[in-house]
Amino acid sequence: MITATEDNEYYELTSPTALPKASGFLWNEKMMIHMNCRGYAVAQYMQPEPAKYSHAPNLEAKTFMQPEQPYYAHHPGRFLYVKDEESGEIFSAPYEPVRALPEQYTFAVGKHDILWKIRNRDILIEMSLSLPKDDTMELWRVKVTNLSPNRRKLSLYPYYTVGYMSWMNQSGEYNEQLQGIVCSSITPYQKYQDYSKVKEMNDKTFLLADRRPAAWEVNHEAFEGEGGIASPSAIHREELAKGEARYETPVAVLQYRLDLEPGAEESYRFLFGPAHNEEQIAGIKQKYFGGEDGFAAAEREYEEYVAEGRGCIEIATPDADLDNFVNHWLPRQMYYHGKTNRLTTDPQTRNYLQDNMGMSYIAPDIARNAFLTALSQQEASGEMPDGIILHKDAELKYINQVPHTDHCIWLPVCLSTYLDETNDYSLLEETVPYVGGKESGTVREHVDRAMNWLIQARDERGLNYINQGDWCDPMNMVGPKGKGVSGWLTIATAYAFSTWADICERSGKPEVARQYRLAAEETNAVANEYLWDGEWYARGITDDNVLFGISTDKEGRIFLNPQGWALMSGAADETKRKKLIQTVAEQLESPYGVEKLAPSYTSMREDVGRVTQKHPGSAENGAVYNHAAAFYIYALYLTGEQENAFRLLRKMIPGPDAEDILRRGQLPVFIPNYYRGAYRQYPKTAGRSSHLFNTGTVPWVYRSLIDGLFGLQGTPEGIRVRPQLPAEWQKAAVKRRFRGAELKVTFKREPEVKAVEVYLDGILAENGLIKDMQAGTAYEVLVKIPQ
Amino acid sequence: MITATEDNEYYELTSPTALPKASGFLWNEKMMIHMNCRGYAVAQYMQPEPAKYSHAPNLEAKTFMQPEQPYYAHHPGRFLYVKDEESGEIFSAPYEPVRALPEQYTFAVGKHDILWKIRNRDILIEMSLSLPKDDTMELWRVKVTNLSPNRRKLSLYPYYTVGYMSWMNQSGEYNEQLQGIVCSSITPYQKYQDYSKVKEMNDKTFLLADRRPAAWEVNHEAFEGEGGIASPSAIHREELAKGEARYETPVAVLQYRLDLEPGAEESYRFLFGPAHNEEQIAGIKQKYFGGEDGFAAAEREYEEYVAEGRGCIEIATPDADLDNFVNHWLPRQMYYHGKTNRLTTDPQTRNYLQDNMGMSYIAPDIARNAFLTALSQQEASGEMPDGIILHKDAELKYINQVPHTDHCIWLPVCLSTYLDETNDYSLLEETVPYVGGKESGTVREHVDRAMNWLIQARDERGLNYINQGDWCDPMNMVGPKGKGVSGWLTIATAYAFSTWADICERSGKPEVARQYRLAAEETNAVANEYLWDGEWYARGITDDNVLFGISTDKEGRIFLNPQGWALMSGAADETKRKKLIQTVAEQLESPYGVEKLAPSYTSMREDVGRVTQKHPGSAENGAVYNHAAAFYIYALYLTGEQENAFRLLRKMIPGPDAEDILRRGQLPVFIPNYYRGAYRQYPKTAGRSSHLFNTGTVPWVYRSLIDGLFGLQGTPEGIRVRPQLPAEWQKAAVKRRFRGAELKVTFKREPEVKAVEVYLDGILAENGLIKDMQAGTAYEVLVKIPQ
Repeated sequence: MITATEDNEYYELTSPTALPKASGFLWNEKMMIHMNCRGYAVAQYMQPEPAKYSHAPNLEAKTFMQPEQPYYAHHPGRFLYVKDEESGEIFSAPYEPVRALPEQYTFAVGKHDILWKIRNRDILIEMSLSLPKDDTMELWRVKVTNLSPNRRKLSLYPYYTVGYMSWMNQSGEYNEQLQGIVCSSITPYQKYQDYSKVKEMNDKTFLLADRRPAAWEVNHEAFEGEGGIASPSAIHREELAKGEARYETPVAVLQYRLDLEPGAEESYRFLFGPAHNEEQIAGIKQKYFGGEDGFAAAEREYEEYVAEGRGCIEIATPDADLDNFVNHWLPRQMYYHGKTNRLTTDPQTRNYLQDNMGMSYIAPDIARNAFLTALSQQEASGEMPDGIILHKDAELKYINQVPHTDHCIWLPVCLSTYLDETNDYSLLEETVPYVGGKESGTVREHVDRAMNWLIQARDERGLNYINQGDWCDPMNMVGPKGKGVSGWLTIATAYAFSTWADICERSGKPEVARQYRLAAEETNAVANEYLWDGEWYARGITDDNVLFGISTDKEGRIFLNPQGWALMSGAADETKRKKLIQTVAEQLESPYGVEKLAPSYTSMREDVGRVTQKHPGSAENGAVYNHAAAFYIYALYLTGEQENAFRLLRKMIPGPDAEDILRRGQLPVFIPNYYRGAYRQYPKTAGRSSHLFNTGTVPWVYRSLIDGLFGLQGTPEGIRVRPQLPAEWQKAAVKRRFRGAELKVTFKREPEVKAVEVYLDGILAENGLIKDMQAGTAYEVLVKIPQ
Repeated sequence: MITATEDNEYYELTSPTALPKASGFLWNEKMMIHMNCRGYAVAQYMQPEPAKYSHAPNLEAKTFMQPEQPYYAHHPGRFLYVKDEESGEIFSAPYEPVRALPEQYTFAVGKHDILWKIRNRDILIEMSLSLPKDDTMELWRVKVTNLSPNRRKLSLYPYYTVGYMSWMNQSGEYNEQLQGIVCSSITPYQKYQDYSKVKEMNDKTFLLADRRPAAWEVNHEAFEGEGGIASPSAIHREELAKGEARYETPVAVLQYRLDLEPGAEESYRFLFGPAHNEEQIAGIKQKYFGGEDGFAAAEREYEEYVAEGRGCIEIATPDADLDNFVNHWLPRQMYYHGKTNRLTTDPQTRNYLQDNMGMSYIAPDIARNAFLTALSQQEASGEMPDGIILHKDAELKYINQVPHTDHCIWLPVCLSTYLDETNDYSLLEETVPYVGGKESGTVREHVDRAMNWLIQARDERGLNYINQGDWCDPMNMVGPKGKGVSGWLTIATAYAFSTWADICERSGKPEVARQYRLAAEETNAVANEYLWDGEWYARGITDDNVLFGISTDKEGRIFLNPQGWALMSGAADETKRKKLIQTVAEQLESPYGVEKLAPSYTSMREDVGRVTQKHPGSAENGAVYNHAAAFYIYALYLTGEQENAFRLLRKMIPGPDAEDILRRGQLPVFIPNYYRGAYRQYPKTAGRSSHLFNTGTVPWVYRSLIDGLFGLQGTPEGIRVRPQLPAEWQKAAVKRRFRGAELKVTFKREPEVKAVEVYLDGILAENGLIKDMQAGTAYEVLVKIPQ
């Protein structure tokens, strides 16, 4: 029912009801579409802020992307009604809105397209969605085949939601010249100062067809009639009424009449998207449906575009599902983050840096530019802003208006991956202005100032202030008075110091390195003095000096982040390590991964903040918040806890069995930002996917694979091979792209070796260090691992 | 199909499909519900800003009330599914979501309740909705009667939409103790500063029943299943699953099992609304379903509350539909405005003053207080603010953030009605502070300053600046540079001066009166010099000195407001009067009333502004905007144009025939803010009601009836009777409540009289002036009118 295709190009689902929220997503340089297996869709594009061209039936709130998006009958979607002209029966593809169970159904999520094959009443409908690389629109193909032994007369009705575009002005009509439907609106505004923006907007939605329809309908209400969306009155008539929408809710519906001999087929292509005016739409028609086949060329170009997002490892392990996910889906999700910046013009600084940490593995140039962009918005004080402005008209919105204190730590943490991967230490010597442009400094100086900012943003004990939040946004009432401190941030600061020390060390600044290493040690000592609670580290200390995230708390007793980061920073000695790892397993681990905190808060705790008001088990309040879980997995690998690490890593990907996938509710084509947690309090809902694929999880998973599981992390000299394969793996192979070279690495358990032995092209590499690799060259690496 | 009941207490509709958007509305001290004939509902309450307890299925935008509200399958509503346990057949009442055509259907909109009678498969469902006077909740009764000759086993499922409450936290469960469903949420917020407000909010939605249900469902998705909203899977099972919602979309559905002998009936009552916590809900249960019958008492109390909103005239004319509307619905709509302030905490100043002009006829004390409230927010410069703040936490929102220049003129205009009606000239001597509280002055001084502000807010020609708008909000680009002027506002200023002069004259300030009368004359002269375009008055002159609303304009050639107000101000001499009245009839009048401007703009005119971007025929852009039409009707009466006035007045109320009501799409129970216009450009959609009952129209219609049609306007001495009945009326009767007295006025056409003769209790009243009336006394007035 849920399987990967043999070539691993697609994940397939063969029932429209088993996994009703299953989905895939496509994106390009301008837009994103989240496509549900039943035909529902959420599409957004940038102009420059996120906008829609296919709307809900009512006025929607403008907001950031939400998890656990609910569907409903009139949710925006892309559908095809099919009517048998002789029997009058109708069904729809993919499944909504008619919900007539197909005889056969396949929903296939690919990397660069999404496909359906639906057989219903012996009619086969094949549909595909792809995108162009640079234009904002959807490319749809529809093929209809008569599989029955009889000639069939059909009407086909592509039905694309336009919805409630605007209370100020909306309309729609069929345009003979364009051979399509054009719906027009004006983005509502009240202040004349906004007009200059509104007048530039792409307030039109078009549906263009490559074949002339017999009829159409643009008026949603007229289309539906009393039949309703599941059985529109207009479809039960011989011909659509060729109506228009005048300040009524528009819709784009076409009608094609088919007369198919047994085995015969007909094909159609459609373009659906936003535009500024008719001329632009005419240009689109010319480009995609004109003389040369622009449509197919765009599909090919998009395929190549997506293929550029391949990662730097291809793996073959005893775990085929893991292989599929790591080889195909994980780098794609990282690439999406790096390319789209989560469809925001002001990504949170920590997200932007981590997303580009991921891009270091795929497109290091993009990562490099992003680090420079972020640093050019740093205050001369060293403080990093809450969000990075990516468009001249952008401004800090939503959570970015709330001051957080953790942004500086991500600089060395994320740079370190970039440097490991590229060895491009020249980046540190680039000169970048501080925000405002009065001062400039090298990247090295920028990071120094960031570290120094962290040193001064501490209380008398040496604990880092939390202000209105750290990595955990809604922990917003711990420190608004300027006294409360973050346990996690203090520990993370120690890790940032030691990471920066490593970088300084490697780049010829041993004295600076020594200072930061000392600072890291001091910080770790402070953490152990004030935050260690006996079995684990506390999450923080409030404005009123209350330690929380400790054993005497009934809710929010233990938080995951301080534990993992204490492993990374070295705060935890071996005794503490053992204790906290055991505690995490006992109190936070669930069948779906490790939870962010437990027990979930069920009511407001005013000195902790908004996190305690979030729904138990959702988002930050006790979910299996994969971003935090990925930190922890990384930390376990750093500590050599390879079995623990792998078990948790494996829980992050739905499956392998159908039961687990059904429980999560999503195909294993992306890691969601969370699975519902609070497993011990609300077992019934635990494990469900949020279906939100925006998450800082993915670069950390990738880093865990490279630095941890396969131990193929870059160093200035090359790669130090230090695998941490799970005990049950007898062998594994990894194709590793690294600084232009290609390594074919084979891992083998060998009963005779006592310690890992690494052979480069047959020759034993000292200390497991592979060096002197040349770009453009292929190498064979054999890694022998003790049994 | 559409008729008033014999007692005129209800308007009835007997088909759920003929007039699918037909609706009624109820309100009380805290809330409003707009109830559609098919079961859809929009309810809002104040906490202090408008909030909802029954939501759409997606995140809704927070905005002002919209016209032409679209409905869709999952639109919030109140429904009842009925299942025949033997046949398995289902239908729903009132009509949605199953849409099974009933054998008999009545939707009856009353003043204090809304009723349905639905007979389907020989089961009679009677439903009623009422409100309490002071509490925020809905009072529902449901009665089921078996009209068939057989015993019937049924399941009954009251189904109340709860919807997408919050992305931060939402849940719902059945509460055994409360005998009902309680859904909980937390209003989303991100800044900790907002917590103090959020924690006070009524974030729960409850459905309480007076009878214990057999089962229930609170999980929307589980309820619907694959059957969808029109045929929920849960209903096809024997018993609802007693589910709960945990961060899933909640719904409130109960199940009752009935076993009805022929003729037998069962009754149920439900309470649906928002609450802060369980204790409060327990209190509600006790109050309404406890020992004494609080439910029925609340219904009675609400009936009395609504009855207090009766107007000051009851009419009996040859036009029964007009009588019904004027006696029952028009004062009710005025009362709604005065009581709820349109469910905003910052009503626009002009709306607030006009709504309270209407309250002068119903509850003059409320009007008096409102005038004082408005004046206490006046600047010491005389300028009136854009909105009146009615709650300590309120702020100016939406359009009230855009500076408009007309607010001052409404002071004398609206006060004048209050003074006519009450003779309470003492109001003028009340001392009121200016905003900020540093200065104070009498109401008289306040109005003087307002008039003086108007005098200085003019250009060198003496034309009034428009800034970013006047009465017409979206005419926002005529004068943002500080140069453009409003033709209408200049003329309206002249009318304000002369109205204030009249008030000063009557209150012992003849010298002041003389000055304002002179100012009015000068202003009228300026208007004639710069704005008269040959056949009508221009709408204004832009920042770049372009006259617009003139004969050479292709769109927006003529605007209604300057024409009517030139009749009121006296700017138009007899020649101009005739010309402009004829032009309005030719260019602006449609079968559905007189349009606000014509031809509607179809594209942006940057020097006029946003109005030109609104949908043609909608809202301000060429609609039959009833507020403007009502000004014009009033102006026609002032000018003695009684036939023209009555014709337009009559077009404002849907009907009398069904065809006209169907065209408008609403029952004649309120005047909407507009009917779709652009009749000459888009005849197909013209005439449709906006279904939005918030409008400044109603007090002007009432004033036109009193001052114009029946000529029963108050004066300091009493009432000067000056009827302007349409020629075809041979007689009419009006019961007029006036300053505590009650007049029974009979109008009769008498062939023998040459001029109107007025008899008070049989004695001829000099100059038609009825004076020396005593409160608490009834008088008989006979008015003889020439044939």
